[in-house]
Amino acid sequence: MIIDIPENSDFSIHNIPFGIFSTKDRSPRAGVAIGEHILDLAAVAELDVFDFNTAVFEKEALNDFISLGKDITKKVRKNIQHWLQDDNSVLANNPELFVKQSEAQMHMPVYVGDYTDFYSSIEHATNVGTMFRDPNNALLPNWKHIPVGYHGRASSIIVSGEAIHRPKGQTKPNDSDTPVFGPSQRLDFELEMGFITGRNTHLSESVSTAEAEDYIFGLVLFNDWSARDIQKWEYVPLGPFLAKNFASSISPWIVTLEALEPFRVEGPEQTPEVLPYLQYEGEKNYDINLEVGITPEGSKETTVCHSNFKYMYWNMAQQLAHHTVNGCNINVGDMMASGTISGKSEDSYGSMLELAWMGTKPLKMKDGTERKFINDGDTVTMRGYAEKDGQRVGFGEVSTKVLPAK
Amino acid sequence: MIIDIPENSDFSIHNIPFGIFSTKDRSPRAGVAIGEHILDLAAVAELDVFDFNTAVFEKEALNDFISLGKDITKKVRKNIQHWLQDDNSVLANNPELFVKQSEAQMHMPVYVGDYTDFYSSIEHATNVGTMFRDPNNALLPNWKHIPVGYHGRASSIIVSGEAIHRPKGQTKPNDSDTPVFGPSQRLDFELEMGFITGRNTHLSESVSTAEAEDYIFGLVLFNDWSARDIQKWEYVPLGPFLAKNFASSISPWIVTLEALEPFRVEGPEQTPEVLPYLQYEGEKNYDINLEVGITPEGSKETTVCHSNFKYMYWNMAQQLAHHTVNGCNINVGDMMASGTISGKSEDSYGSMLELAWMGTKPLKMKDGTERKFINDGDTVTMRGYAEKDGQRVGFGEVSTKVLPAK
Repeated sequence: MIIDIPENSDFSIHNIPFGIFSTKDRSPRAGVAIGEHILDLAAVAELDVFDFNTAVFEKEALNDFISLGKDITKKVRKNIQHWLQDDNSVLANNPELFVKQSEAQMHMPVYVGDYTDFYSSIEHATNVGTMFRDPNNALLPNWKHIPVGYHGRASSIIVSGEAIHRPKGQTKPNDSDTPVFGPSQRLDFELEMGFITGRNTHLSESVSTAEAEDYIFGLVLFNDWSARDIQKWEYVPLGPFLAKNFASSISPWIVTLEALEPFRVEGPEQTPEVLPYLQYEGEKNYDINLEVGITPEGSKETTVCHSNFKYMYWNMAQQLAHHTVNGCNINVGDMMASGTISGKSEDSYGSMLELAWMGTKPLKMKDGTERKFINDGDTVTMRGYAEKDGQRVGFGEVSTKVLPAK
Repeated sequence: MIIDIPENSDFSIHNIPFGIFSTKDRSPRAGVAIGEHILDLAAVAELDVFDFNTAVFEKEALNDFISLGKDITKKVRKNIQHWLQDDNSVLANNPELFVKQSEAQMHMPVYVGDYTDFYSSIEHATNVGTMFRDPNNALLPNWKHIPVGYHGRASSIIVSGEAIHRPKGQTKPNDSDTPVFGPSQRLDFELEMGFITGRNTHLSESVSTAEAEDYIFGLVLFNDWSARDIQKWEYVPLGPFLAKNFASSISPWIVTLEALEPFRVEGPEQTPEVLPYLQYEGEKNYDINLEVGITPEGSKETTVCHSNFKYMYWNMAQQLAHHTVNGCNINVGDMMASGTISGKSEDSYGSMLELAWMGTKPLKMKDGTERKFINDGDTVTMRGYAEKDGQRVGFGEVSTKVLPAK
């Protein structure tokens, strides 16, 4: 190995995730995370080792690189794995190719054209239905037939490290006949993963579940920030709007589907049987450990949730097949998020709404304070990694501090 | 006038709308519609008459031109009006600057980053509530407090002239316990107008109702295609998704807010009083006549709807103030559509759902056939124009043919 990789690093030789970074002396460009370093792809390109137009590595987003197609992006990943392990490779004795992550600034890895959020965890949908509707009829009639989803706001997707301000908006207190305006009192996170599409389709084309993986470049951690009080007042009948579109945060490194290949697992059984266009073959879920921590201002982090991406009822292939079955077109760089990923146990719920059960079971922080929702000054950090047979492939983190309303 | 403009042309000297067109011999570029012609702005730029970088006219979308700001875009419009009326102007004796509209292909005028659809006609919301919920309680409790809106799909917005295929999807027939899959049986149009934003904001910034018009570049006609049967089964609880995202069609020429200035009118009284951030001063509605025609394959057009943009309960300034009050950021080229524009009379309803009242009152076509919804082979055409004191400012049309499901 020509670069030191700490044991248990998310960014092992098995990973090779892609991102966009900048340094004090050079503007945003493409890189690969390896251990505690970034391999500068724009600098590697100057060694003339790639057989395609490497201008794609000089861009402020990975869309053009991803658009080259999986034949090329997979080969780049394989080459990098090979070079990093070969003491005589082109990368050896070139320390200037490696930038310390601590000295780099991360940016949005892709330009997101359209963003869709699904609602694909049965435990989450059941918890929400139990709280707000009927515990005996928690799932709506369409839930087991449709990977329910809705369109979100692409412009307000930000990268880990960027702080957000608590949103203001209309809410209607239970004891009032009329709405009031002010900062949200029920700011929440949602633990999700998002996949980024890697191929375009034309309008009226569909992608089958069998083809779907060819259209998925990779995944990131996704925090779908939510203002529960704004959501409650606005969302009937057309869905969440201002309760969600003030910000969504993602982790900066796109972990490719290839890197996640060893971690495939079977998904939950789907009963009743789904319509033919949603049926699939093979293992389409991924065993990815997820956790969420809350760090109050000037204090220590408390882990509040342990979940896993494998819990998803609807998988990514089904989501993409459903999204396009009506002919809706997709573009490289579209973001499709999973919806909150909750498990069966109470400590695996992926939102404060569920963890503190609508405020009835506040969570204890290490500093002695309690949380029903997220306070000003809190930093919410999500982490994710897959591990098997000594191979670890991780996502790093998405970490976002909440500042007071402006 | 250095070019002939037919009487009653939508594209009078008072209009000067911007669009993107191409010709057999030259790729997409910016132009202005005038009478039956297009003034080729890329060609005008070669005369060296503009004091900014005219590369913006060579682009495949107007975003960069719009980004120059209203000081410049307003001046360009004024200059063109002046030059067109001056027989000795730089444009005179330069017939090659003018392209016949019949010989040009129109393209999407902007790259749309994010698309939002509102639901701002009280007549439409009341009709839908009457049909699907309770005639005595047709409006939901939030409707008069919030300009209700939701995010739509930007990738599938297409320009007039491009045909669409009938979408397929899941529906649940009333007599069935389980959903079925197939072509939508209830394909509908929605008569809307959309505005295109002309300035960016940063995350956590808001635009007030007083500032809103500075952020609006102009308007287009907008057909929000809808599959009612798909919508009915999917939309609870997160809103419309596949029922809408297979296509939305727009007219190709962006009519600027400046051109619409003479047609301002007062909007409907809003009772109860709205929250302070939604209050506004002045006339914020626009008197724009709208109509919809259906042309069956190989037959004549039947006009099925006469409506007016002035009916809107919530105006564009309120929509934009609401959209950004939580800090949601906007970018140049965002599209914000009004929602279906219905009036009080039965022939002013802006969708087949309302016009044929859920299929109970089929519409007669000139060829003797009837329509409850839109048939394969039908072409739906929307037109819009404002007229006052002999000045006419129109939008041309958005016309879309429906092909059978693929």
